[in-house]
Formats: sequence, structure tokens, C-alpha cells
Amino acid sequence: MNSMHWNVYLAGEIHTDWRSELKQAAADLPITFLEPVTDHASSDDCGARILGGESDPFWHDRKGAGVNAIRTRPMIERADAVVVKFGDKYRQWNAAFDAGMAAALGKPLIVVHPDEFRHALKEVDAAACAVASDVNQVAEVLRYVVCGELPR
Amino acid sequence: MNSMHWNVYLAGEIHTDWRSELKQAAADLPITFLEPVTDHASSDDCGARILGGESDPFWHDRKGAGVNAIRTRPMIERADAVVVKFGDKYRQWNAAFDAGMAAALGKPLIVVHPDEFRHALKEVDAAACAVASDVNQVAEVLRYVVCGELPR
Amino acid sequence: MNSMHWNVYLAGEIHTDWRSELKQAAADLPITFLEPVTDHASSDDCGARILGGESDPFWHDRKGAGVNAIRTRPMIERADAVVVKFGDKYRQWNAAFDAGMAAALGKPLIVVHPDEFRHALKEVDAAACAVASDVNQVAEVLRYVVCGELPR
Amino acid sequence: MNSMHWNVYLAGEIHTDWRSELKQAAADLPITFLEPVTDHASSDDCGARILGGESDPFWHDRKGAGVNAIRTRPMIERADAVVVKFGDKYRQWNAAFDAGMAAALGKPLIVVHPDEFRHALKEVDAAACAVASDVNQVAEVLRYVVCGELPR
Amino acid sequence: MNSMHWNVYLAGEIHTDWRSELKQAAADLPITFLEPVTDHASSDDCGARILGGESDPFWHDRKGAGVNAIRTRPMIERADAVVVKFGDKYRQWNAAFDAGMAAALGKPLIVVHPDEFRHALKEVDAAACAVASDVNQVAEVLRYVVCGELPR
Amino acid sequence: MNSMHWNVYLAGEIHTDWRSELKQAAADLPITFLEPVTDHASSDDCGARILGGESDPFWHDRKGAGVNAIRTRPMIERADAVVVKFGDKYRQWNAAFDAGMAAALGKPLIVVHPDEFRHALKEVDAAACAVASDVNQVAEVLRYVVCGELPR
Amino acid sequence: MNSMHWNVYLAGEIHTDWRSELKQAAADLPITFLEPVTDHASSDDCGARILGGESDPFWHDRKGAGVNAIRTRPMIERADAVVVKFGDKYRQWNAAFDAGMAAALGKPLIVVHPDEFRHALKEVDAAACAVASDVNQVAEVLRYVVCGELPR
Amino acid sequence: MNSMHWNVYLAGEIHTDWRSELKQAAADLPITFLEPVTDHASSDDCGARILGGESDPFWHDRKGAGVNAIRTRPMIERADAVVVKFGDKYRQWNAAFDAGMAAALGKPLIVVHPDEFRHALKEVDAAACAVASDVNQVAEVLRYVVCGELPR
Repeated sequence: MNSMHWNVYLAGEIHTDWRSELKQAAADLPITFLEPVTDHASSDDCGARILGGESDPFWHDRKGAGVNAIRTRPMIERADAVVVKFGDKYRQWNAAFDAGMAAALGKPLIVVHPDEFRHALKEVDAAACAVASDVNQVAEVLRYVVCGELPR
Repeated sequence: MNSMHWNVYLAGEIHTDWRSELKQAAADLPITFLEPVTDHASSDDCGARILGGESDPFWHDRKGAGVNAIRTRPMIERADAVVVKFGDKYRQWNAAFDAGMAAALGKPLIVVHPDEFRHALKEVDAAACAVASDVNQVAEVLRYVVCGELPR
Repeated sequence: MNSMHWNVYLAGEIHTDWRSELKQAAADLPITFLEPVTDHASSDDCGARILGGESDPFWHDRKGAGVNAIRTRPMIERADAVVVKFGDKYRQWNAAFDAGMAAALGKPLIVVHPDEFRHALKEVDAAACAVASDVNQVAEVLRYVVCGELPR
Repeated sequence: MNSMHWNVYLAGEIHTDWRSELKQAAADLPITFLEPVTDHASSDDCGARILGGESDPFWHDRKGAGVNAIRTRPMIERADAVVVKFGDKYRQWNAAFDAGMAAALGKPLIVVHPDEFRHALKEVDAAACAVASDVNQVAEVLRYVVCGELPR
Repeated sequence: MNSMHWNVYLAGEIHTDWRSELKQAAADLPITFLEPVTDHASSDDCGARILGGESDPFWHDRKGAGVNAIRTRPMIERADAVVVKFGDKYRQWNAAFDAGMAAALGKPLIVVHPDEFRHALKEVDAAACAVASDVNQVAEVLRYVVCGELPR
Repeated sequence: MNSMHWNVYLAGEIHTDWRSELKQAAADLPITFLEPVTDHASSDDCGARILGGESDPFWHDRKGAGVNAIRTRPMIERADAVVVKFGDKYRQWNAAFDAGMAAALGKPLIVVHPDEFRHALKEVDAAACAVASDVNQVAEVLRYVVCGELPR
Repeated sequence: MNSMHWNVYLAGEIHTDWRSELKQAAADLPITFLEPVTDHASSDDCGARILGGESDPFWHDRKGAGVNAIRTRPMIERADAVVVKFGDKYRQWNAAFDAGMAAALGKPLIVVHPDEFRHALKEVDAAACAVASDVNQVAEVLRYVVCGELPR
Repeated sequence: MNSMHWNVYLAGEIHTDWRSELKQAAADLPITFLEPVTDHASSDDCGARILGGESDPFWHDRKGAGVNAIRTRPMIERADAVVVKFGDKYRQWNAAFDAGMAAALGKPLIVVHPDEFRHALKEVDAAACAVASDVNQVAEVLRYVVCGELPR
């Protein structure tokens, strides 16, 4: 074994297929990509579906978020680097929360967001090693980080 | 000395005077409240004002966020508990980022937000010890936590 | 390697065969299950059997508990998630002790207990990501956490 | 300042006045005693009283346990030593949970329990620096630990 | 006590009086400044002077560096923020070494250096929350961080 | 407050009065000296005296060592620096054990021993910041470390 | 993979072949045994042989101990459990130092020594999960810990 | 698997081929060598090449250093030992910064530098387990550390 195998956690936006794009672009790299469950309905309802329904939506959400955390916390702990993507739909506080956890754990952070979020995300960006504007840049960052190859 | 002195960090919303309200309501408790600089203009411009202006707003923001982090990181580290308030103005990713840091550091988290953010904040709420709907509840939680007194 | 392999520690009750049930239900998942020695007599007597008998039962127990801890501490440290089952036999302080260790180490906790223990276990439940009422639910939680599949 | 000031957390049983006894016996020692809220009704209802009632007793309990944890977690973190008392009323899983947290955090543990719990508490005892059978012994241990004085 | 007292460690250059300047400019702030022994001869010879001379200069240096580390390591551990100044005399690897320690310990870093060192210090700068070009800027950063006041 | 207050733990030899000598020589320095109970009989018998006698000397010793650890572990944790003295009486494995704990916790270590133990203590010495041959040197090291003053 | 692979570090005595005995007795167990270099002459002279000789034996020893630490520290860090054997030759402070490191790092400790060292090793024994009187007992402890099998 | 596989990070000088030399000399050892991107132009320009150019060279450098840190931080975290080589070209503050990080993380440090840097590197050397004067010595140290073999 003459190089390092990487674990990279992909946090944030679940309404586009950016994770597939990234994984395809990085398919030849020694990276295991870790990610939350990205099926929106499953992610929302997993707690109630397994552990029993709740009439109060607050507890419905609490149960689901608890179950999802069993998956995401160990993945963030195990990650060598964390990519967090902010999109234009929804408030995505979840993405910023994961970024805060990653920063506190000393994980190198790669943030991806459209330029218009620059000011609103300034604290998250300031904690990041790289701020990308699209997924293609993230793929290039990962290729460089893992292999030392720059885009031609 | 027969009781514990508390450090409580107040993160999040800076556009209302909730911190003053809370500090007034808890003025007789042995708590030192820690907080970011809450003057919006100062918080935005501190980096450029001190370290030199930037033509690119991205770097203007980066400089400011860096300087503010010198204050906020040690305060979160030193806190015994962290209160994070989400309001209805702006995107407040900063608040969620601080909540993520606090959670990763094992700090008990008190989250405050209007009910309408229930679903969007479900992961943050699930990491919290208490979810309050207004500042008055936070004051009551702190009074109970510090003194054991419940509201009459 | 395109997904994560999980270590899950199974703490608590040793008088029923819940661990076998769970392992069977999760046999196709990429999980290594870690567990204490569950043969009751061996667990009680291991210290005295190997290191020499004791006339005082307090030291007999201390020796056995010490030897068992050599196994259980590293397993809890290595676990990505910890399942703790409380049953209706014995006092099972041991299970609550393991839950406390797991919580302090930041391990996601899945607690299983009959509803009648709700009030007595409220602090343990509050530290958990999921509270299940039977082993089948735990299996479903693990399947979702590891694969993203929900029960039909 | 020529000696160390101690923080000692008193976990466990809340239905007897052992904490007062211990504090009286150690009144002349440089120790700040930290402890959970020991008014049983307050401890049970704090969550619902402050944050709003719940029809489902599970969530009533969860809210209360969450609020109490804001107090107890930082106190355990700050403690130099942790005393955990097990009594004969209730199941007291809470006490064992606190003992597990203290052990995982490397806090020296002093366990107090009647002899009849010897076997059931063997794992907790094995993690302890001292196992006492009554509060008077705990007071003597603390006096020795803090001042070097033994009982005559 | 209604605000936080700060510990700030001043690393780097010992051949100018920048520490006095900074301490004077910040004399009214609630900051304890920590710093290495800055008398060059004492710093070089402390090991040999106290523990015995060495004929081999390598061991002379080792002894002195060891004794100085007894002072500097706990000071860096205790600091809320670390200022590192690079000047134009000597190689000052020591300053970069302290910066690396501070970064690994999660301490906010303020780096001060003349612009000409920009490229050579890029990794250190990238780990910093603020990069200043003179001591006056550092004083202004500290005033803002501690009190929220910006220069007029 | 314009300088740092130090906690220094004094481990090792309890059969000479080196701790008094050192404390006298450093009486004017801002140092709180922490130390084990140094009355040999008390240290040996504290466990049995308080918690009840044991017929087997192994458990007599275990009880005493447990009680002493309640004092020494938090003191080592709180120390800014640890002095360990090895003398020529007894085997003093205890001193080396404390040195190992201090090293693992990143505490600067000052070791004192007669030259004849050089080879036997080489691993401990290699982990130390300073190796002194007598208590006077330790006092001088502490004076330099705390105040920057060298012996004339 | 349906069970855990163990790393066990073997510290202490290097003048008998206890490590070979133990490894043979445990040859069928899923354990990787880690150990210091046990060739006495190599261990003493490695520093000088590779990095250059020293006229002063203190620095000869320091160089060797430094090089050996490059091996032993990461091995102790990686170990799931640490066995420390004290024999009757030499002072073996090194063994006690390793035991202290292991204890501070939370590694379960198995101590082996002849009964005559009971009193001198009481602090080390009190930090251990098991105290064995010979290597055969250690092998049986490891077999039980890893497989749950007790000696017949 | 009967021995340990090592991860060794090679920090510092990138203008000579010392890494190839070392890897060749250690080709038969169970070591994975980790290292920064050593192509100077790529290392300088990676940030701008991937994430967009900057007119201000300060931000050009910041972007590049950020991207390189995504690679180097996890590699240092994962290393069992860190080799840092200082050469005579450039200021190499980067090398000293990495040494500081490694020291703070408790990684055994092997420093390589020509004798003329002895005094300037005394603090770095004092934190190291071994100070070598050329790469051949490093190879011999690694061979001894991993296999116990000394040069003939």
C-alpha cells in the first residue's frame, strides 16, 4: 500500500444530484464517499416509520433527526475531509450545522455555494480550506489533494 | 464558594435586543454571558477597518469573519452552555454553524426559534437539550439550571 | 470500497438471546457486532478462575469485573454506535453504566426497553439518538442507518 | 493560595438527605459541592413547566431530562471527583449512567451503596477508586484526599 | 464579573520591543499577556547555567530549549489566542513552530510580519484568523476582539 | 493580573523533606505546589482505616492506592508542570508511573535523581524537559520558568 | 469480518523470553502483539550507532531512549490493551513509566509480577484491570477477553 | 498479521529528492509514506488554478495554502511518526509549522538538518525524538524503529 485511502463526507443539499456528479468525476480516485441518506421522504420519516408515528410534528421530526444522526455523526468523525454544499432551495441550516461540527473536529472543510451567498456564509467560508462555486471545482480539488494532479 | 459560576454563550440573531432582555431577566444569577460583537456594521467591517480594505467583497468578508472568530471560538470553548437564537431575518447560517461547533464540543445547547422553523431546524433541535420558543423560556431554563427554581 | 463498514457494540441484558436475533436480522449488513462475554457464569467467575479465588465475594466480583472491562472498554471505544438493552430481570446498572460511557465518548446511542421503564430510564433515553421498544426496531434502525432502506 | 480547591459532584439518590449530611461533615474543607436539582417534583416537571406540557409521558420525561442535563453535564465535566450513591428505592439507572460518564471522562469515582448491591454493582465498583458503605466513609475519604487527615 | 478575561500568548521575535509596545497599547484591556523569556542570553544559556555546562553546543542548546519549553508549553495551552511575530532577523523557526502548536491546539492565531514574507509564510498565514503588518494592527484587533471597539 | 499563576505537582520520593526545601526556596514565586499525602503510614493505611480492614495484604494495598489516586489524578491533571524525584530508597515505581501519566498528558516534566540512576532512568529522562541532580536545581529551574531570573 | 482484531502491547522486562511464551500460548488468537525492541544491546546503543557516538553516557542514553520512543509511543497509542511485566532484575522504571502512559491514555492494563512486589507496585496494580502472577495467567486472560473461553 | 504497518509523514524541503532516496532505502519496510504535493509550481498555484485567479498575491497564496492543507492536515493526523527536513534554501517556515503541529499532536518527530542550523533549530530539535544530519540516518532510524535492525 503506497498511498493513502481517503474518506470524504458529503454534507448539505439533497435536492440535486451533485453527489453522483462528484462521485463520477472522482471515480478513479482512492476515496470512499460517505453521505447522509439523501432520499428526502425517507430522511424525514425514518424515525416515525421505524419507531412509531407521532401526532405532534415536532416529535415526528425529532425522532427522524435522531435516527439520521446515528448515521451522520460517525461518518463525520471518520472523514478526512468534509464537503458542504449550499444550494438555493430551503434554509439548509443542517448544512451549516454539519460544517460547524466538522470545523470543531478539525476536519478540513470544502464549501460549495453560488456567489450570491457570499456574505451570508462568510463565517462558514472563513473556517474552510477551500470555497468552490461548483461541483466541478470540488472534484478538481479532491483530485489535486489525493493525487497532486492539476486540471490542464 | 458554595455554588458554581456559569459561562453561557449567546449565539445567533443580532438584529433584535434578545441578549439584553435575557441578561436583564437573569441579572441576579451567577452567570457571565459571553457573546459575539453584535454591532452589525462593526462585525461586518472589522477586518477591513483594522487590517486594510479589500476591493473584492469575498476577501472583505473573509477578513471580517476571521477577526470575529478570534472572539467567538474561545468564548464557545469556555462556555458551560450555549444558547442559539434563530430569528426570521436573514439566513443565519452563522447561528447553525455555532450550534454545530457547540454540539461537537459537547456543550449543552439551548435553541430558540419560532415554531415555523420546526422542520428546517430539526437536526439542530435534535442535538439540543432544550428547544424554547422565546427568550423568556430561556431565562427560565437558565434560572432552573443554575438555581433549581421553577417559574410560579 | 464504496461504503463504510460499521462496528456496533451490543451492551446490556445477557439473559435473553436478543443479540443472536439482531445479528440474524442484520446478517447481510456490513456490520461487525461487538459484545461482552454473555455466558453469565463465565462473566461472573472469569477473574477468580484465571487469577485465583477469593474468599470475600466483593473481591471475587472485583476481579471478574476487571477482566471483563479489558474486553468491553476497547470495544466501546471502537464502536461507531452502541445499542443498550434493558430487560426486566436484575437491576442492570451495568447497562446504564455502559450507556453513560458511550454518551461521554460521543457514540450515538440506541436504547431498547419495554415501555414500563420509560420514567426510570428518562435520562438515558434523553441521551439517545433512538429509543426502541424491541429488537426488531433496532434491526430496522441499523438497516436504515447503514443502507438507507426503510421497512416496507 | 497554597492548596487546591476541589469541585466534587454528588450524583445518585435524591430521596434521602445524604448530600446535606456530607456537606455538613465536610463544611470546613475547601470543596465546592456540585449536585443535580434534588427536588423530585421539580426535576421531573421542569421541562414541561418551562417549555410547555406534553400529553405523551415519554416526551414529558424527555423534556425534563434534557433540561436537567444542561445542569449536570457541565458539573460532571468540571468535577475533580464524582461521588455516586445508590440507595434501595427506585432503579437508579440515572446514577449508573452518571458513573459511566465520569469513568469515561477519567474522573475519580467514589461509589456508595449498601453491601447487598455488591454483585449488581460490580462493574461500577470496579471502575471506582473507593467503594464506601455509608456517607460517613465518603466524608472521611474526602477529608483524607483534600487534607491528608485520617479519622482517629 | 460581566465579561471575559483573556490570556494572550506572544510568540516569536525577541529582538525588538514589540511586546512592550503591544502591552502598553492594550494596557486598559482585561488581558493577561503571556510570553517566553525574552532576554536572549538568558534564553540561550538557562539550561547550562542551572543544570551544568556542556562542551558540545548541541547539548548546550538542547538543555536550554528544554528549560524554556517548561514555560512556553503551558502558556500556549492556557492562551485564548496566540500572536506570532516574524521579524527580519534570524530564521525564527521557533516562531513558526509555536504557530504550528497553536494551530493544532485550535487556538486562534494572529500573525504579524512585513509584507515581504508573504509567500514564505503562506501556510502559516492560511492557518491564521488575522494577518497583521504591524503591532498597532494587533493592538486594534485585540481591542475589537475583547471590547468590540473599532479604531476611529 | 499581569502574570500567570502556576500549579506544580511534586511526585516521587516521600522519605526525605525535599518538598519542604523546594517550597521554601520558591516561597516568593506565584506557584501552588500540589503533592500526594506524604505521611508514609497514612498513605499506606488510608484505605483500610476508612473503608475497613482487609486480611489479604494485596487488597489492603489496593484500597489504599485507590484512595490516594482520588487525590493524585486530579492534581496531575491540573498541574502546569510535574517534578518527579527518584531517591535511593525503595523501588519507587510509583514515581515512574506518575512520570508516565504526566508525559502522556503533555505536562512538562522535571526529573530529579542522583547520577547513578542515569542508565536505569533513561526513558524517563528522555521524556523530560529538564533533568536535575538536586532540589536546588529544581528551584532554580522553577524560578527561571516563572520569572525569567537566572541564578547569579 | 465477524469479530474484533486486537492489538496488545507487551511492555516491561526484556531479559526473559516471556513475550515468546505468551505469543506461543496465544498463537491462535486474533491478536497482533506489539513490543519494544527487546535486544538489550541494540536498545541501549541504537541512538549512538545510527546518529553518532557520545562521550558523555547521559547523552548516549538520551539518544537511544529517543529513538526507542519513536517505536514505543505509537505502539502504545494503537494498543487495545497493554501488558506490563515486572521481573526481579534491574529497576524497571521503564515498565512503570509505560504503565503510567497506558493508564493516562485509558488503555486497559494487565500487570504481571511476582507476589513479593505487591506493596511496591500497589499504585500500578490499582490502575490495572488484572494483576497476574505469571505469563500463563496473562495468556488465559487474553483468551477469555478475545474469545470468551475460560481454562478448563 | 504479526507486525504493525506504519504511516510516516515526510514534511519540509521540497527542492531536493530526499523523499525518493528515503523511500528507496526503506522500500522493503512496512511503511506507507505520506507527503505534501512536492511539485513546487503546482503547490504554489493549485488554489488559483482550480478556484480562480487572484490579482492580489496575498490571496493567491492563501488559496493555494488552503488547498494544500486539505491534504497535509489529515496526513499528519494519520501519521505514526513525522520526519521534517530543513535544507539550506528558502526560509522553510512551513517545515517548522508542521513540526509544531506534529509535536502538539504527540507524534514522534525525526528532524533532519545540516549541523549549521543547530542553534536556530534548537526548540524544534528539543521536541524531537531523533535529530539526524542526513537522510541515510533517517532511513536507518526507520529500519530500527520498524524492524529492530541496526546498521552493520
